Amino acid sequence: MLVKDNLPSIQAFDLAVYLQERKALVDAALDRALPVSYPEKIYEAMRYSLLASGKRLRPIFCLASCELTGGTLEMAMPTACALEMIHTMSLIHDDLPAMDNDDFRRGKPTNHKVYGENIAILAGDGLMIYAFEYIARATEEVPADRVLAVITKIATASGAAGLVGGQVVDLEYEGKSDVPLSTLNYIHTHKTGALLESTVVSGAMLAGCPASDLERLSQYAKNIGLAFQIIDDILDITSTQEELGKTAGKDQQAQKVTFPSIWGIDESKNQAHSLVQEAKAQLEPFGERAIPLMAITDFITTRSN
Amino acid sequence: MLVKDNLPSIQAFDLAVYLQERKALVDAALDRALPVSYPEKIYEAMRYSLLASGKRLRPIFCLASCELTGGTLEMAMPTACALEMIHTMSLIHDDLPAMDNDDFRRGKPTNHKVYGENIAILAGDGLMIYAFEYIARATEEVPADRVLAVITKIATASGAAGLVGGQVVDLEYEGKSDVPLSTLNYIHTHKTGALLESTVVSGAMLAGCPASDLERLSQYAKNIGLAFQIIDDILDITSTQEELGKTAGKDQQAQKVTFPSIWGIDESKNQAHSLVQEAKAQLEPFGERAIPLMAITDFITTRSN
Repeated sequence: MLVKDNLPSIQAFDLAVYLQERKALVDAALDRALPVSYPEKIYEAMRYSLLASGKRLRPIFCLASCELTGGTLEMAMPTACALEMIHTMSLIHDDLPAMDNDDFRRGKPTNHKVYGENIAILAGDGLMIYAFEYIARATEEVPADRVLAVITKIATASGAAGLVGGQVVDLEYEGKSDVPLSTLNYIHTHKTGALLESTVVSGAMLAGCPASDLERLSQYAKNIGLAFQIIDDILDITSTQEELGKTAGKDQQAQKVTFPSIWGIDESKNQAHSLVQEAKAQLEPFGERAIPLMAITDFITTRSN
Repeated sequence: MLVKDNLPSIQAFDLAVYLQERKALVDAALDRALPVSYPEKIYEAMRYSLLASGKRLRPIFCLASCELTGGTLEMAMPTACALEMIHTMSLIHDDLPAMDNDDFRRGKPTNHKVYGENIAILAGDGLMIYAFEYIARATEEVPADRVLAVITKIATASGAAGLVGGQVVDLEYEGKSDVPLSTLNYIHTHKTGALLESTVVSGAMLAGCPASDLERLSQYAKNIGLAFQIIDDILDITSTQEELGKTAGKDQQAQKVTFPSIWGIDESKNQAHSLVQEAKAQLEPFGERAIPLMAITDFITTRSN
């Protein structure tokens, strides 16, 4: 059962408890969304990566945005789960030997290390397909035309015009030291930013949010997405493998151009901070309903792993 | 522009002209559906395989089924295109070195041979995601709840419960000579049959076809799907690479268990013939409207490549 929509007051709000509760709800919903059946191996491979420990920030953004704009957790939960499936799929395929060739992810061996390359490719495919099936089939109490608009939004953010396009340009510039800032921006606004933006916007779309507020939330999420990536780049340099739960220092080893490699670490932190301040300004008109998203936003700029 | 819905009489019907016209409509619609934009490489890779010469039988089934049940070509065209995108995606990923490691497909070098393994993986991902986006975004004159039901139907047929599941079991039994007939049936009803069934059923769903007729069409398509696979297995043995447009004799080289390897070629032909007769019996209640599907059905059992 989902907990009842229960918006907090400033005094009562405890982010750690909120994130813990939401993560538990999402983990349980993901577990229910994808039961094992024949052929077991593919479901196990899909579940191995999907249910691996993660902060579930994308689903939490989607749920928070739906509540912020007057919707319920129930309306957004299938879409929230689908967003985590798509994110997981992109990680599985990104880690493949033909791509980034990564051995560790979320503190565990990568999917192809456990199940083999062929099953890992198919597990990614299966998760991607199931994401759209699950939104279409499991979303309740939302008019069908809104659900179609959400599918369009999320697919655009995930495909060649979004995440996949970002990965292509990222691969193209791999190992090159002369990546222009505009290209680096393109890579991140597409590879990471587009899906994150769609988490926030899709939650509000499900709630029937008017276009002007959708635009505010889109701007909020774009800023957060870029800040999130800058901080990720910083952490790749400053963290250990144990802290990150994935191979640390990969970017430097691969001589990858990152925001810190252009700006240095301190200026990168400043840039991330400015983006976050501008993002929060977009939330102000929503008043007390925005408390959870405000707090999550602060959390992102101070996380250490 | 699409041609006007114009159902043929028995006397006037010319299958060759019909297939040529429909293929031309589908080819033009696919070309329009996926224009090139930045980053060009991924769109070119997606279009390379999507627009490669093909009979377009899956889209044609979808269009024919929609017309059979009272719908229009316009209602079904986005879904018809999406089905070809999903089919193409499954071929691109199936041909990868980690999977079947095939060098030729549809008479041309496979996607990874031209664009590299990493881009081929992403081109498949991009096509799969775009398929669902395109159904959701481009379908017109169909109520939104029907479109959602079609997305659910096609995703189920494509994912771990369908095509992807069939590929997993196929990989599991690769090189084994003791594949039970029930497993061989599972592989083909899922790897090939499920998507084909969804082409016929989705076309009728878009037209608002009642459940009893959907069940008839589903049964028709399941029989055709299995017949199609048996004939494919036969052709792999009896055709040359030039005729097939892909590497011939792969199954025998890989010591793959196929219907002809269990039944022999003559009995396989008999089985395919029986399946087709049973399929056609399902179409009889539709009367003259079923003429195109009847003719396509005959065509399938007599094709030589």
